[in-house]
Amino acid sequence: MAVFAESGYRGGSLKEIADRVGLSQAGLLHHFSSKEHLLAEVIALRDASDQARRFAESTPSGRDALAGLAEQVRHNTTVPGLVQLYVTLSGEAVAEGHPAHTSFVERYRALRRYLGVAVAEGQRAGDVDPALDPAVIATALIALMDGLQIQWLLDPAAVDMPTVVESYLKSLGP
Amino acid sequence: MAVFAESGYRGGSLKEIADRVGLSQAGLLHHFSSKEHLLAEVIALRDASDQARRFAESTPSGRDALAGLAEQVRHNTTVPGLVQLYVTLSGEAVAEGHPAHTSFVERYRALRRYLGVAVAEGQRAGDVDPALDPAVIATALIALMDGLQIQWLLDPAAVDMPTVVESYLKSLGP
Repeated sequence: MAVFAESGYRGGSLKEIADRVGLSQAGLLHHFSSKEHLLAEVIALRDASDQARRFAESTPSGRDALAGLAEQVRHNTTVPGLVQLYVTLSGEAVAEGHPAHTSFVERYRALRRYLGVAVAEGQRAGDVDPALDPAVIATALIALMDGLQIQWLLDPAAVDMPTVVESYLKSLGP
Repeated sequence: MAVFAESGYRGGSLKEIADRVGLSQAGLLHHFSSKEHLLAEVIALRDASDQARRFAESTPSGRDALAGLAEQVRHNTTVPGLVQLYVTLSGEAVAEGHPAHTSFVERYRALRRYLGVAVAEGQRAGDVDPALDPAVIATALIALMDGLQIQWLLDPAAVDMPTVVESYLKSLGP
């Protein structure tokens, strides 16, 4: 995870990973049959510690789902290495042919669907302005969180991610 | 630009760049003394076609500056290769030690400053809700635009960048 976070998937070499864990490259490839396999496992491990995946699999309730986003962002400020891994891999994975491309496409589709439902639920509960388009707000919320991570990693003292997300969530109120 | 957009700075090799322009690696290095130098020139070329840089250097007027963002986003939908270059390089450049790290830190500082002034101007002109914190809105606007690019590149048919940005700008009204 550290090597891919620092150097990306393309820039991170099997040799450096093997060196860091004290294995030969052959030893590493005994556990992970290829670099792509290693990437898939790293993403799975990252997701396991991330609420976003839980979101995408559960049935959201509007207010809880939106409050959960703010909580996720607060949590992310404590795990900069994982945030960097995500930013670096998502930046690479926009390229067609990147081994994580399809998984990122599907991840964002699931997130937009999940948050779109959450916003619509929030509207029915009277927590969210009924004039807003749930699909637009879902896309914006995800974009806001992704973009904040880039600014925060580059300049942590200047960018307060939770404050910005909470301010945006508050602006959705009726 | 195409090689760095597709493979990133770290993943893009001088050999591939030389091949694509029909030069030997020595020939390429005659024009650009190093891969880092080539990256600096690619970023400069990219910036030259980007209004963001002009923003950061001009004196913004609130309404024009914010309208200019929406226009920039509409323009970006016509240049996916440049957007991919930006997403891939910014994703890599969060790593300390990346040759573009400092330039991205400074770029975002300048953008936040510029847009913070623009939002405050908009508030004085009565276009923007005076209760909003200009620094928070500036950070959010940049984050929204950056995050949208990731989703749009991954799924262009599902993500309408201008609509989302215009909806956000509209929500800032008094």
